[in-house]
Amino acid sequence: MTVSFTHETLPQRVVFASYQAAGHVADEVARLGATRPMVIATAANRALADPLVAALPAAVRHDEVVMHVPTDVAERARMVAEKHDVDVVVSIGGGSTTGLAKAVALTTGLPIVAVPTTYAGSEATNVWGLTEGGRKTTGVDARVLPRSVVYDASLLLSLPVPLSVASGLNALAHCVDSMWAPRVDPIDQALAVEGIRALSQGLPEVVREPQGIAGREQTLYGAYLAAVAFASAGSGLHHRICHVLGGMYNLPHAQTHAVVLPYVLALNVPSVPTSGQRMAAAFGAASALEGLQRLREQVAAPRALRDYGLRETDIPAAVDAVLAAVPPNNPTPVTRENLEDLLRRAWDGGEPV
Amino acid sequence: MTVSFTHETLPQRVVFASYQAAGHVADEVARLGATRPMVIATAANRALADPLVAALPAAVRHDEVVMHVPTDVAERARMVAEKHDVDVVVSIGGGSTTGLAKAVALTTGLPIVAVPTTYAGSEATNVWGLTEGGRKTTGVDARVLPRSVVYDASLLLSLPVPLSVASGLNALAHCVDSMWAPRVDPIDQALAVEGIRALSQGLPEVVREPQGIAGREQTLYGAYLAAVAFASAGSGLHHRICHVLGGMYNLPHAQTHAVVLPYVLALNVPSVPTSGQRMAAAFGAASALEGLQRLREQVAAPRALRDYGLRETDIPAAVDAVLAAVPPNNPTPVTRENLEDLLRRAWDGGEPV
Repeated sequence: MTVSFTHETLPQRVVFASYQAAGHVADEVARLGATRPMVIATAANRALADPLVAALPAAVRHDEVVMHVPTDVAERARMVAEKHDVDVVVSIGGGSTTGLAKAVALTTGLPIVAVPTTYAGSEATNVWGLTEGGRKTTGVDARVLPRSVVYDASLLLSLPVPLSVASGLNALAHCVDSMWAPRVDPIDQALAVEGIRALSQGLPEVVREPQGIAGREQTLYGAYLAAVAFASAGSGLHHRICHVLGGMYNLPHAQTHAVVLPYVLALNVPSVPTSGQRMAAAFGAASALEGLQRLREQVAAPRALRDYGLRETDIPAAVDAVLAAVPPNNPTPVTRENLEDLLRRAWDGGEPV
Repeated sequence: MTVSFTHETLPQRVVFASYQAAGHVADEVARLGATRPMVIATAANRALADPLVAALPAAVRHDEVVMHVPTDVAERARMVAEKHDVDVVVSIGGGSTTGLAKAVALTTGLPIVAVPTTYAGSEATNVWGLTEGGRKTTGVDARVLPRSVVYDASLLLSLPVPLSVASGLNALAHCVDSMWAPRVDPIDQALAVEGIRALSQGLPEVVREPQGIAGREQTLYGAYLAAVAFASAGSGLHHRICHVLGGMYNLPHAQTHAVVLPYVLALNVPSVPTSGQRMAAAFGAASALEGLQRLREQVAAPRALRDYGLRETDIPAAVDAVLAAVPPNNPTPVTRENLEDLLRRAWDGGEPV
């Protein structure tokens, strides 16, 4: 087995500890030598953000956060940063909040200290996104990678269980799909496998006891690893399928991921038995598929795309669109036949094969 | 089980591919926008270095490399760099060569492209070392971390088997000791476990077929992971013991590591059963100790410190010195009794318990 890869390790400090976000954010801001922070947090997250803001030097607060970061929203945030001559952006929130901080960093070069309140993982990547007139542009830039991430699982205790499950399964899909994604390397795989271990332990715990900190910690830690692995490895077959289905039929993102994952796993694992064994061990199951299915039952994951708006008659067109987007390095060759079979099973919640 | 840690990920590009060093070094130099490289390689490594130099823009070559980087040797290398107005340092060699490049980078800020020809791992750390009048000073500085590492396992085909085994077991000790080292975090552990997997597959292969590329690749990849994990986690009990013994009794470095490791593993594993299971899985053995001992047999590792100059009468003083250096977080409490027992067993090659 040849070892051959390129891996770019991105510089980031991660401080992970429950119930300590306020002190840690202040520490990280001070480490950067910053004294005039801009804190981005939505009004809905005000209660979570207030104690963190209280521990900081006098901060400018900004709460205009919109999904997918429209350019005018980004522009207003940049103007606030400039007007107040801020020297660090502290984002407290989910992917949209982190995304806005990244938009500010992209043009100003300001460092970011990110405090995630979901399992989205954007805080661990150098990917930014902006939308204008409904069209999304994304890019990669070293300036948008948060310098420090302060993880505090207690900030996620109020994240509702269905949202936690959707977001956690999305992170799991990042890990699984990383195992065979276009730029995958053995380091990505090691981190992805560790992410699977953490998520498969943490998520059922979150469902069982949403107010328990242990499950929240494991899930948050797994979500971090998922983001690191996925950002390095790129989108594999699973994400290509979900992206196509989401775009063509407006299917809900998280549910689509949760339904499709076992079918892609079942297709690919026979071609990568070593990865399959490593995932199985991470799930603590006899096979990767068995581990994933057990986890999906434990968290009552969505089962069929027909429940989310996909019609059976949509399948042929979906097959065409996905076929054009299959990564060339996918371990099992994707044909019209096996892809149509996969989508039919995902459509009606059939057995993954 | 609480998740609580701080992890600093260091920025580095790693390009890993056999028989491609010349092209990859030229690519990495070009990526840095550099056109006037200084190539550091010993006279002994000239044959390895020549094809790499041939692919570079006109380079200044420097071959005065001395173990432990004496300050006058460092000073002369810096003067060469300055005189020729170089814009990148390319080091081709083992720990001493990388160390000299780091000494140049430390004062000049020049970027390094490192090409390792041993399993030492210095290329993956931000640690530098200099000696003056026999006294070694070490430090940590972002400037000395090579920007790119070009790994090419074919450059290690000529590394003699005994040296390969010593250097590979040293890397393995870095992985194992990282599991409970002072600053260990779960990311270090994930990388260390992956390192154990690679080294335990690669090293016996190197012994069986020294000219085979597969074993060299696995060992080199494992050595990289060992260095990353160890640099982040710090020195655990194993390295403290070896450092004390080496300093007091001038025992050979690699052999001391190879002998002591199973005794420290046997002491600590009962206190960290999860880590034990993960290491066992990485070794592909029923237990971590069984895996390590099998590997040591396969590579005919040294068995007893008495064979390397330690006298039985040295043990009590060694116990005193080690006791003063035990990391406070060592999982199994270290007492005079269990430490003396450990050193006695290591001295005569007894059963690890």
